[in-house]
Amino acid sequence: MTHSSERLADLDRAHIIHPYLPGTWTERVVMASGSGCRLTDTEGRDYLDATGGLWLAQIGHGRTELADVAHAQMAKLEYFTSFWEFSNEPAIELAARLAEMAPDPLNHVYFTSGGSEGNEAAIKMARYYHHRRGDTGRTWILARDKAYHGIGYGGGSATGFPVYHEGFAPMMPHVSHLTPPWPYRDELYGGEDPTDFLVRELEERIAAIGPDNIAAMIGEPIMGVGGMLVPPADYWPRVREVLDRHGILLIFDEVVTAYGRVGEWFAAQHFGVTPDIIVTAKGITSGYVPLGALLVGDHVAEVLLREHGFPMGYTYNGHPVATAVALANLDIIHREGLLGRAKTIGAYLHGELESQLGELPIVGEIRSVGMMLAVELVADRDTRIPLPLHPERMPHDVIRRETGVIVRDSAHSLVLSPPLIMTEGEAKEAAAALRGVLERTDPSGEIRAA
Amino acid sequence: MTHSSERLADLDRAHIIHPYLPGTWTERVVMASGSGCRLTDTEGRDYLDATGGLWLAQIGHGRTELADVAHAQMAKLEYFTSFWEFSNEPAIELAARLAEMAPDPLNHVYFTSGGSEGNEAAIKMARYYHHRRGDTGRTWILARDKAYHGIGYGGGSATGFPVYHEGFAPMMPHVSHLTPPWPYRDELYGGEDPTDFLVRELEERIAAIGPDNIAAMIGEPIMGVGGMLVPPADYWPRVREVLDRHGILLIFDEVVTAYGRVGEWFAAQHFGVTPDIIVTAKGITSGYVPLGALLVGDHVAEVLLREHGFPMGYTYNGHPVATAVALANLDIIHREGLLGRAKTIGAYLHGELESQLGELPIVGEIRSVGMMLAVELVADRDTRIPLPLHPERMPHDVIRRETGVIVRDSAHSLVLSPPLIMTEGEAKEAAAALRGVLERTDPSGEIRAA
Repeated sequence: MTHSSERLADLDRAHIIHPYLPGTWTERVVMASGSGCRLTDTEGRDYLDATGGLWLAQIGHGRTELADVAHAQMAKLEYFTSFWEFSNEPAIELAARLAEMAPDPLNHVYFTSGGSEGNEAAIKMARYYHHRRGDTGRTWILARDKAYHGIGYGGGSATGFPVYHEGFAPMMPHVSHLTPPWPYRDELYGGEDPTDFLVRELEERIAAIGPDNIAAMIGEPIMGVGGMLVPPADYWPRVREVLDRHGILLIFDEVVTAYGRVGEWFAAQHFGVTPDIIVTAKGITSGYVPLGALLVGDHVAEVLLREHGFPMGYTYNGHPVATAVALANLDIIHREGLLGRAKTIGAYLHGELESQLGELPIVGEIRSVGMMLAVELVADRDTRIPLPLHPERMPHDVIRRETGVIVRDSAHSLVLSPPLIMTEGEAKEAAAALRGVLERTDPSGEIRAA
Repeated sequence: MTHSSERLADLDRAHIIHPYLPGTWTERVVMASGSGCRLTDTEGRDYLDATGGLWLAQIGHGRTELADVAHAQMAKLEYFTSFWEFSNEPAIELAARLAEMAPDPLNHVYFTSGGSEGNEAAIKMARYYHHRRGDTGRTWILARDKAYHGIGYGGGSATGFPVYHEGFAPMMPHVSHLTPPWPYRDELYGGEDPTDFLVRELEERIAAIGPDNIAAMIGEPIMGVGGMLVPPADYWPRVREVLDRHGILLIFDEVVTAYGRVGEWFAAQHFGVTPDIIVTAKGITSGYVPLGALLVGDHVAEVLLREHGFPMGYTYNGHPVATAVALANLDIIHREGLLGRAKTIGAYLHGELESQLGELPIVGEIRSVGMMLAVELVADRDTRIPLPLHPERMPHDVIRRETGVIVRDSAHSLVLSPPLIMTEGEAKEAAAALRGVLERTDPSGEIRAA
């Protein structure tokens, strides 16, 4: 790479369409290198990565062990298709490993290159399962407001934010959105127990649509883009029971939560609920190479494999380099005990956030499971009115500019999902960075100069 | 990797859902290594890869140069997000390079991890472009029968084969399919000049839907899964003229055709037509790492970058390792003159197919552009009735089992898309393999024993 930092920013502005970036925004942060939780940009500035890229860098940056594995596999067999009867060694080894890790009866694997591809596939699987069994009316998908299931037209239709539909419509039909489980916002439930409310709403919705018209419910076990919304412990078990009673499949979108993020291989294990399909991506390679995998129950796979099989496939399905890197990544998570680490360092980071931010008037709630954490910002702790946000002066941007600590905003929360290897010192540093800016943030959303 | 070949096949059958593979199909071909156009499976059997994986291995297998680049980038910065103001060096270098290669005014790049993601994004861009300009009624997408635009719910709706919709519906609404350009099947056009027919049909369809309701037409310049259908030379220029007159965007799905496959960087250049958006993937890395890129015209990008920007992004957008590998891949295509090579070896392979197969009674037509070739199979050359196909005994399967030459069937054609580095000896070998089986294939589709 031969260009100066300034020239790189010029070329970027001239040629790249970044997601969610207005053309008027001239600032660029061009990352150059990374190690552990640290990143350095082309101007030599250092950052603490408290978002794990986009919630995926479980093992942290700069692991040469994975680079070595990628090199060896790429030199041997970089790619051949996994359509039809073709396969390759790392894809098979990874499928067998995932089947072993996942709760029974999730013993079958369908590969993708990411979460959006995965959710398209999961919706198709659910509809196809019913279709092939003769339940051809079962086409509806239940989802939730504030859900994020990627940006394909299928998953994107299940996504529950208006900004992901406006200007893109018409979306895929036959999606119905329910209320999300968000105990902090108990006004959503009119004083009722949140789970009681949500289960009753689910039953009523099923009755309204007709159970014989519904293929599946899709949900993130913990809603990520919605702001790390942790449901009550009885929510998923009771939802599962209702769905089972009506022959409706349950799809867990674990793109964010799988592979150690919540302290287990899968959030399904954290909640003690077994879905029919789990969609994963991100943490499966810690982002070193794009990859995703669906874990599919025996009963679903048996139907998908009937007749001419499951008629959809992505080019890079079972990519040898991606699957080899995934195996090495899972080795590291296992070898370094990162499931346990996610719990202990997650609890430590939660404690640091609590002690440094817990008393600030604009902090409404601090919540977490493992290494998924959120700080919900409010104008007033009593009324819980969300903190007004100004696009030109968002707390997370100010935190990054002033301290080099990278966190993300999600629906009026600051969210953290650092590498699972974060040290206690780095956890302290992240919490202090948030405090430094949030203690100067007024209930109007204005941030006073330091 | 520690398992025997037999054990690998067992694990595969137990745990992998392969695209398009029935559960009753027990045979597995587990690829272990590759070099140039050659592959070797775990049983030590050799293959000649005449499909380029899935139409993507432009530079061939086993290029350690790319493995070295991947290793260096992965060790330095394996991944950080390219959402918002974040970026990285190889993504910027690649965007600038693509903008230079693409026809003007396609100067803007939006990254994905593959063709299906790309077509979802292209449809969203087209609708969003009109929406933001106030043409909120422009939501319809024109596509063609026999089109393949991937398997997301958006692109999959534009795909024009019933098997990609059955059991998955309801698909995304507001898609209308036109007749494909397929001169060999002139019965489609009732004796009229194919382009005259197709342009008239296009005009009539636009009038029926209403031009103010149409966002874009999407098309593969040469239809791949449809069977390498090459349109008449005047088709795309005349279609472009009609669309321009009605303010309808043109999206070229060049997932297969870009990066040398047809002897130019883009098929747009081959046909002398400039679309508003080009969707690419596959050949951009020759498959070494999953990657895709949309090339977007200035006029479209300007609108997408207004207000809060373009509100969709895939996790691996601008992936540093993928974009670094793409740069090295493009270097090789340039340095080794593979655009020219695609034309000369493509013409040579076409000649070999013509001389070895041209007189067989079941060969209806041999067609090609560069290194995209098809042999259309018929029961009778005069009536051009398609050759009956038996799933358990397809010509391409028999060719692979008997000769080790891998070709693919697409809608009653055998299609070839080998690495652009194929030698003349390998071209002869591929053609001879096809002859060896096709000369024993009866008009009933039965293949006589050798």
